[in-house]
Amino acid sequence: MFESAEIGHKIGKTAYRDAVAPLRAALLEAQADLQESKKIPVVVLISGQDGAGKGETINVLYEWMDPRFISTLAFSQASDEERERPPMWRYWRSLPAKGRVGIFAGSWYSDPIRQRIGAEISFKELDARADQINRFEAMLVNEGALVLKFWFHLTKEGQRKRLKALESDPRTAWRVTKWNWDRLKTYDQLQEVAGHFLRMTNTPWAPWVVVEGTDDRYRSLTVGKILLEAMQKKLASTDKQESPVAPMVRVDTDGRNVLSELNLKLKLADKPYESELAKWQGRLSELARDPRFKARSLVCAFEGADAAGKGGAIRRIGAALDARQYQVIPVAAPTEEERAQPYLWRFWRHLPRHGRVAIFDRTWYGRVLVERVEGFCAENDWLRAYTEINDFEHELADSGVMVVKFWLQISQEEQLARFKAREQVAFKRFKITQEDWRNREKWVAYQHAICDMVERTSTGNAPWTVVEANDKNYARVKILRTLCERLEAEFEGKHAPGAERRSKKPGKRGKKRD
Amino acid sequence: MFESAEIGHKIGKTAYRDAVAPLRAALLEAQADLQESKKIPVVVLISGQDGAGKGETINVLYEWMDPRFISTLAFSQASDEERERPPMWRYWRSLPAKGRVGIFAGSWYSDPIRQRIGAEISFKELDARADQINRFEAMLVNEGALVLKFWFHLTKEGQRKRLKALESDPRTAWRVTKWNWDRLKTYDQLQEVAGHFLRMTNTPWAPWVVVEGTDDRYRSLTVGKILLEAMQKKLASTDKQESPVAPMVRVDTDGRNVLSELNLKLKLADKPYESELAKWQGRLSELARDPRFKARSLVCAFEGADAAGKGGAIRRIGAALDARQYQVIPVAAPTEEERAQPYLWRFWRHLPRHGRVAIFDRTWYGRVLVERVEGFCAENDWLRAYTEINDFEHELADSGVMVVKFWLQISQEEQLARFKAREQVAFKRFKITQEDWRNREKWVAYQHAICDMVERTSTGNAPWTVVEANDKNYARVKILRTLCERLEAEFEGKHAPGAERRSKKPGKRGKKRD
Repeated sequence: MFESAEIGHKIGKTAYRDAVAPLRAALLEAQADLQESKKIPVVVLISGQDGAGKGETINVLYEWMDPRFISTLAFSQASDEERERPPMWRYWRSLPAKGRVGIFAGSWYSDPIRQRIGAEISFKELDARADQINRFEAMLVNEGALVLKFWFHLTKEGQRKRLKALESDPRTAWRVTKWNWDRLKTYDQLQEVAGHFLRMTNTPWAPWVVVEGTDDRYRSLTVGKILLEAMQKKLASTDKQESPVAPMVRVDTDGRNVLSELNLKLKLADKPYESELAKWQGRLSELARDPRFKARSLVCAFEGADAAGKGGAIRRIGAALDARQYQVIPVAAPTEEERAQPYLWRFWRHLPRHGRVAIFDRTWYGRVLVERVEGFCAENDWLRAYTEINDFEHELADSGVMVVKFWLQISQEEQLARFKAREQVAFKRFKITQEDWRNREKWVAYQHAICDMVERTSTGNAPWTVVEANDKNYARVKILRTLCERLEAEFEGKHAPGAERRSKKPGKRGKKRD
Repeated sequence: MFESAEIGHKIGKTAYRDAVAPLRAALLEAQADLQESKKIPVVVLISGQDGAGKGETINVLYEWMDPRFISTLAFSQASDEERERPPMWRYWRSLPAKGRVGIFAGSWYSDPIRQRIGAEISFKELDARADQINRFEAMLVNEGALVLKFWFHLTKEGQRKRLKALESDPRTAWRVTKWNWDRLKTYDQLQEVAGHFLRMTNTPWAPWVVVEGTDDRYRSLTVGKILLEAMQKKLASTDKQESPVAPMVRVDTDGRNVLSELNLKLKLADKPYESELAKWQGRLSELARDPRFKARSLVCAFEGADAAGKGGAIRRIGAALDARQYQVIPVAAPTEEERAQPYLWRFWRHLPRHGRVAIFDRTWYGRVLVERVEGFCAENDWLRAYTEINDFEHELADSGVMVVKFWLQISQEEQLARFKAREQVAFKRFKITQEDWRNREKWVAYQHAICDMVERTSTGNAPWTVVEANDKNYARVKILRTLCERLEAEFEGKHAPGAERRSKKPGKRGKKRD
């Protein structure tokens, strides 16, 4: 992997000067086009050995390009707000918007490599990380991003020389610390781990570019030229490049499915409802104050046809919680800032801190429900969304976030009755819109979408609970009970398979990386 | 202030039930109107004594209203990201967008009251905080917000009873901790401090509503009704309510002003430029790594006519910094999310952490420059902006952020020459727009606006540096030198008057509140 970066590449002073002027002009041109079209975010990862010129290269890029449309993201010690979210949260919040260049000095590669060198994780775990990264980067590329990953390489002798040179120059001596010299001792280990990890993450959609770090001019020019060419090609390509997706197939030849099998006649009379409600709300209120919740967080996802009773159910949950502890996130059309980011970005940004609850009224499943049925996104987009969503929820579960998902199912007759009833009651009138009526017409298409969704995204980590919701009493109690039982199981380490994985490494999740 | 909240208000069960149904319907209606018009953010502060029903009331509001359009913000211990910014940052980032209701459980009142009770600040300092808060709330109201401040009051005996009652009910016992009982001991002190502070902040635009906290039904109904009425009235009022502003007057009878007095012929030849540039960049590079910078941050503000050389100057600063340490923030039209917030919100969100630098390419002065001259905002808006901006910069300076502001002045002839030159050079072509040409036509109006700006916002904390920018060499060196000298003065505690204030309380700024 590193051989071609050990052959002593060099660029002379004059050749460099002659090359820089047109390169700079072209880079600014490409950046202006990027900014104008506002379609492509450019993600540049600068990584490699200490002393190989990472900081210098970033500074050169700033010199050549328009710094107003670049951001450099440095990731050292995580802040406490970051530590209380899944590890990828800090990278999601730093993603460049469409039209901008985001340079990552340190990235999602840093931790796995460091942890493997420190023998904190096994090679098998490292490979699992590689897989996760590959899927993440594929998602970025499918969402339109240009992903460029640079690795600056030095031979062991080269690194020693670079560090010495940096140290002897008063202008750069500050860059070299004892920590850097210590890294030299682990050179061979880094080579081994990085070599393996780079190979595992060397995908067609986001390949590594290994650059020899010895000669400043060679390194700068190489990065600049590659960045330029990649931007130009990406800007010029008219067709959206996407991972292939299999067509959707359905196996309900007999017409039976998770929805048809529901008994929508299930009911709960008012009297038992009152006592059941009080019982489960009391239980939930206790669970939310359980000391074990202090290092966890809860994400509730509510989906259901219009008038299925999502709002009422959410209220009954909220009533058992302290208002200061939870947020209801109504999901409507994305804002301008959200549209400039990958689809899941607007859900990542609302992830709760430890001890907190986020209740989503409609969710990231919009893509495989309304967007699919109404044709708001391309077929490819919703077809690949199933795995992207599973990955998202997997990352949440893996970091201790409990994801509890409800589909509230009502019959067409019940929906119609509720629409009519709502129009009579003054204080609910605001809930009925033209759209609600229109959506009814696509009932069958929605039922298919729901079945596909449940089939493809009900995972051990984050199972769907389909709720018979024709009777509001019954639905609310089932939701509260499910939620309580899930929290209990999670607290007692019984929820599989996340529980298994976690219980193998007790205390691991709470560990802080400083 | 509290007398009317000690007369034993009570509402009977039936009266309560009869009142709640129509109240709830009307609240939902008002909320729907609010959400539809998307013009008014509603800021509700819930404060008062422990045990007076703050949490309960918030929960009741959630029961009555649509929780999708409410957020409750609880402010306990500040996160490290918050501690590294001015104290008001955490409140700015939590402000509700237009159309939403934001309930503040704990607010900008909590710290001053707590600090005064703990004798950490003097009464004089408390009054200074009151003044600051009054101005902040006036800004919110002028920006269209409805600000409602509730204080829940109990007599000493009443508080003791409430705490006992809460403690003896297993469902609420968790709410009462030793901390609450300790607060009972400081009842008289709290009464004194809060009484004073509430009176000082009882403004016509954001008056306090003191509510007796003893009876749950009375308290809930009172808050609900007041919230409803205030929302309805605010929604119904067609004219924008604003603080009065004095008309703009100018005192340059002789035609001389800070711009006319500039010597735009100042020049620096290339040879001395190279060495001066290297000298100051080197100095800046050292200052940015100075250990004293680790507890400070730097905000550079760049304003100037088109083609005045802002970009080039920013590059020269950037070249002396580590790219991982600074961000350039290009200020263009606000995004949708930014338009839903007070004007200054989009600048607050970019404030740097400790040890970091934010360079604004165009700034919050847009309001008193382009928005004023082009008529993009009402006269009142830009007339009140001067003080709002001074308050903003004052808060920054007060918390250790160094604010360095540059106006780059060029002559009309020089601007024309640069426009023409730019059109010749390929890699700069993207910088010239139709607008640039159009702005030239309003030259005189802009010169007036600039003079007013400098006159009204060049403060001891954040002075303007007007830069003679016809010669780029001269301008860049002057900017770098000014910046270095300012950083040095700040580090040595010589920059007045912020320095004075800070040096009086050594170590105070770094103090954390946990």
